[in-house]
Amino acid sequence: MLTRNAPKLTYEGALVVMNAAAAKAAEMKLPICIAIVDDGGHLLAFARINDAKPSSVRVSITKAVSAATRRAATGPLPNPENVSVLLSLGMPLASDGNLTCVRGGLPIMWDGVVVGGVGISAGTQEQDEEVARAGIAALQQP
Amino acid sequence: MLTRNAPKLTYEGALVVMNAAAAKAAEMKLPICIAIVDDGGHLLAFARINDAKPSSVRVSITKAVSAATRRAATGPLPNPENVSVLLSLGMPLASDGNLTCVRGGLPIMWDGVVVGGVGISAGTQEQDEEVARAGIAALQQP
Amino acid sequence: MLTRNAPKLTYEGALVVMNAAAAKAAEMKLPICIAIVDDGGHLLAFARINDAKPSSVRVSITKAVSAATRRAATGPLPNPENVSVLLSLGMPLASDGNLTCVRGGLPIMWDGVVVGGVGISAGTQEQDEEVARAGIAALQQP
Amino acid sequence: MLTRNAPKLTYEGALVVMNAAAAKAAEMKLPICIAIVDDGGHLLAFARINDAKPSSVRVSITKAVSAATRRAATGPLPNPENVSVLLSLGMPLASDGNLTCVRGGLPIMWDGVVVGGVGISAGTQEQDEEVARAGIAALQQP
Repeated sequence: MLTRNAPKLTYEGALVVMNAAAAKAAEMKLPICIAIVDDGGHLLAFARINDAKPSSVRVSITKAVSAATRRAATGPLPNPENVSVLLSLGMPLASDGNLTCVRGGLPIMWDGVVVGGVGISAGTQEQDEEVARAGIAALQQP
Repeated sequence: MLTRNAPKLTYEGALVVMNAAAAKAAEMKLPICIAIVDDGGHLLAFARINDAKPSSVRVSITKAVSAATRRAATGPLPNPENVSVLLSLGMPLASDGNLTCVRGGLPIMWDGVVVGGVGISAGTQEQDEEVARAGIAALQQP
Repeated sequence: MLTRNAPKLTYEGALVVMNAAAAKAAEMKLPICIAIVDDGGHLLAFARINDAKPSSVRVSITKAVSAATRRAATGPLPNPENVSVLLSLGMPLASDGNLTCVRGGLPIMWDGVVVGGVGISAGTQEQDEEVARAGIAALQQP
Repeated sequence: MLTRNAPKLTYEGALVVMNAAAAKAAEMKLPICIAIVDDGGHLLAFARINDAKPSSVRVSITKAVSAATRRAATGPLPNPENVSVLLSLGMPLASDGNLTCVRGGLPIMWDGVVVGGVGISAGTQEQDEEVARAGIAALQQP
């Protein structure tokens, strides 16, 4: 099989995620960055809500890229030898900074396939992830 | 005078530029990337209209950063010794890729001050600049 | 439309391109690097045939990434004002080195869609492109 | 002695390692990236088996480069003062990301000399190292 068919996230799909995340952030009164990338980690849509920090731009994009290309939520990595810190920080260092152990990045799924990622920065990690989940939820609605 | 007041582009202002640029691009049937940054060159808003190439993401952001932080439209640089090519390519090399000689980036002005930049990619350089101008025009309207 | 379906190049498909390119290179007695990436510019397969230069590794990958993400063959860019050198070198500088004006990179098409790229280095630019074409041709056969 | 002779890994040798690693990965049903580099850390052969994550490309290459150029398996570094974490993360930071403390990279030996490295990503660290060992074993057979 030389090629296979897969769903691709469109700009319209990305906007659904972004608008829902932005609404959640407004409700939580969080000044944040919202980044949406496709399955290859390439930016589709971005918003820096008023007064969000310049430093959050890169962090939110990295979270989205990490979630999309690693096909998993960002966050600390488990490690059987209980030296999680080495793996959690070693992976970002081994990936030229494209993976992150900071929470707030979630993969965007469609038909059981990762079609992109959303990354939020910078409230607390819990707040960021909550905003990301709100974005994802909007896309999943039937 | 220890500080001075300056206008700062808000996310709402960035959206005005972006929406006008997107409308112009739709009218011209161009699949493009639109990047809006603040006066420090930090991303405020971004859109990759369906089927715009992944390679245009970085180029459009570079154009916006270059226009905003150099306070001037992107494009070939004039040079008194008529070796424009050296300056036009030397500046990107001297700025770690943050300045560009490729047209399609324009500074966003407010009250005579540069408050940000808009970068468009990838139609022709002329098309990109036309889309950027349409975005800017929307902000200047009274 | 929140997502759209698109063909994705598989590892098997990438191998078809790589093996045909390698056969062509052997026939031309060229020690080269062959890089195959997917539509997001992520490496799928790579070969450095004996005695190909270490410096060709990065160049061949850049060519493949450029062809895949810019959806076009690599090479000098045309420019209405006849300052092609500025655009041809300005684009690589504006893309953090991900685009190149050096020939030898071709997009891989399937059903009229770019599903990846192949990059060859380092014979002459003409030799590189000939090897890349041989790789592409193998995939297109019915 | 102005020069000395040393064995150099060939593309054919790299393929022996890669094919054996790929066979092991298939047996373990792992979608992974396999990277083989020479003694200078330059890529010789690479394969991303279907559905391996894009993020694994860079990680597998980093593991191979680290193992080859540091002449040792990748993994946590021992430290006399028992602050292993500082050394294990300090080395990647001091090497521009070319060394890693994440397991799954092994040096390729020949006649007692390191001739290259193999890096695997992304199963667990244990799975990655097992696949790498299978690749190495194929080369060592008489």
